[in-house]
Amino acid sequence: MHKKHNFGAGPCILPPSVMEQAARAVINWRGMGLSILEVSHRSPEFEDVVLKTQLLVRELLAVPDHYSILFLQGGASTQFAMVAMNFLDTGKKAAYLDTGYFAQKAIKEARLFGEVDVFASSGDKDYTYIPVDFNYDKQVAYLHCTSNNTIEGTEMFDFPKGGAPLICDMSSDIFSREINITDFDLIYAGAQKNMGPAGMTLVIAKNEFINQAKKEIPSMMDYQIFRDNMSMYNTPPVFSIYVAMLNLLWLKDQGGVSGIEQKNIAKAKLLYAEIDRNPLFHGTADVEHRSRMNVTFLAVNKEVEAGFLKFAADQGIVGIKGYRTVGGFRASLYNALPLSSVEILVDAMATFEKEYSGKIALELE
Amino acid sequence: MHKKHNFGAGPCILPPSVMEQAARAVINWRGMGLSILEVSHRSPEFEDVVLKTQLLVRELLAVPDHYSILFLQGGASTQFAMVAMNFLDTGKKAAYLDTGYFAQKAIKEARLFGEVDVFASSGDKDYTYIPVDFNYDKQVAYLHCTSNNTIEGTEMFDFPKGGAPLICDMSSDIFSREINITDFDLIYAGAQKNMGPAGMTLVIAKNEFINQAKKEIPSMMDYQIFRDNMSMYNTPPVFSIYVAMLNLLWLKDQGGVSGIEQKNIAKAKLLYAEIDRNPLFHGTADVEHRSRMNVTFLAVNKEVEAGFLKFAADQGIVGIKGYRTVGGFRASLYNALPLSSVEILVDAMATFEKEYSGKIALELE
Repeated sequence: MHKKHNFGAGPCILPPSVMEQAARAVINWRGMGLSILEVSHRSPEFEDVVLKTQLLVRELLAVPDHYSILFLQGGASTQFAMVAMNFLDTGKKAAYLDTGYFAQKAIKEARLFGEVDVFASSGDKDYTYIPVDFNYDKQVAYLHCTSNNTIEGTEMFDFPKGGAPLICDMSSDIFSREINITDFDLIYAGAQKNMGPAGMTLVIAKNEFINQAKKEIPSMMDYQIFRDNMSMYNTPPVFSIYVAMLNLLWLKDQGGVSGIEQKNIAKAKLLYAEIDRNPLFHGTADVEHRSRMNVTFLAVNKEVEAGFLKFAADQGIVGIKGYRTVGGFRASLYNALPLSSVEILVDAMATFEKEYSGKIALELE
Repeated sequence: MHKKHNFGAGPCILPPSVMEQAARAVINWRGMGLSILEVSHRSPEFEDVVLKTQLLVRELLAVPDHYSILFLQGGASTQFAMVAMNFLDTGKKAAYLDTGYFAQKAIKEARLFGEVDVFASSGDKDYTYIPVDFNYDKQVAYLHCTSNNTIEGTEMFDFPKGGAPLICDMSSDIFSREINITDFDLIYAGAQKNMGPAGMTLVIAKNEFINQAKKEIPSMMDYQIFRDNMSMYNTPPVFSIYVAMLNLLWLKDQGGVSGIEQKNIAKAKLLYAEIDRNPLFHGTADVEHRSRMNVTFLAVNKEVEAGFLKFAADQGIVGIKGYRTVGGFRASLYNALPLSSVEILVDAMATFEKEYSGKIALELE
């Protein structure tokens, strides 16, 4: 069967070469006569994988030495609680920027641990934009934001500077564009978009910041324990880390993050141009906050929506159905999605428009 | 390269047929033209995997309908804190049976949430036995035990009955022998021994029990949220669950848990017989509490220890070095390890003994 064009929002497309290497390692890893699924996480070979993956993250995102790179489990949803458990306490306050579905989940979890000040929200316009004009109390324990809103299709291109410690959920756009790590005190990201398969979570944290965390918390929620044990306090998600390493090596070969960023800009530009041109579709997010990773758009009517979903599926395009709260379409353009897949989607939109206009014209005759 | 005989303690050996199916799914799953690593966890195909895996657990362990089957992340180490976070509180008390390294870790985490009564311990004899004669306060929130002590090589064959709700860490012997689920209120197990690859955690819990859990806890630590969302409150560890399903299908083909239990008894009997016969080695655990999963034994001296490790490695035997606190050897005989591998280890021990005795005799001449 022909390979699909996978626009899914995550777990998402990874490069074919990564899949091939991963499959080989499941049978016989490094010629050891063992599968990657049956090696000890304490073996020198796997310790080497953890170290290499850390170094690749450090190199690709230019992470300074005074930041630690950790691999955890449980996804961003666990981090929603973990950041608050570490840095918020009764009598303390944290500031949260509310930019959508996952930001709200983060807010809900933080409220279990202390006071939460939602100092700005784009909820007044269905989260179609990122608030930019805001004030917040600089004395808060930290400020939390979400760099890319997977469901709403918006992305932050500027981050608050010079205030409280900044914590950012970068699950759906990390490794897609250059960022300045020193703008942040802690970054977390579920791996299953641009880093690797589901089952691991990346944390990049300033040592000075995590040194201030609360002490009386569970070991598996303690950033310092992960740092001090090379992310191997307990059995880590071995296969997910291994595939992440393969994927980051691939990213390095693509010219690194700056190289892939140019490709991502080109892919997004092509698709948004068609959305703006094609009278059957329109985008949902404000133009200046349009996400390069998750392109959300609506059809002019239900007939076009259903018809185009089917038309696209017939051409091997999968994963473009929009999230239920937004509806319409969501095409995710993660790193591993080639420009050629976007060209096929854009061609499908144009072809569908011609056929649909022809059919309408015929009906009107 | 020839396949190894993998006696590793975990992540551990899985059946070759499972590895082959897993590798194929990484390239193209179900002929969908997509890798198992890139499918959405919300796809009907993957929802089917979760459902099938739950049903296999239910069938293989005869789990009654009033128990839920959950798939989490973070391993047993996360459960150490999670059970206490859910069921222990300030002013409440939990009873813990201390049978070794991991039991102590569970105790440490529980102490963050309430009072812990360690009512019996085998620490007086280096954890070489399981305490059987004990009393504890039946009014505690729960009683916690560890069914198999991976490091110390001991296993519980009888469980306290008719007292407080019973919580058991079964990470290293679940699916290896028949158990009566209704003896327990909650069972947890890191998957990376007899269930599947690292990266997922199995929980089997009585609904009535988890309904009593605390409410103001993080969503990702809340058993009820996992139950009410079919273990997909957030992105689950897709690949780990998929491989677990394959492995449980394999187990079913082996005659299920009762079938594999007979094979496990035979493997353990063969190895312990050689340990007891061979003058160069001796077991560390009390005979009546010897683990069928993790066979711990020592050499008569350092020369034999180092010599046999090398001799075994030359025959493709891997993973038998003992844990640093116990020393010597640990041969793990998990479900997927064939009897033929145990025969090869036993032969190696006997051959080594002959060669070593010959060498000693020569030196004495």
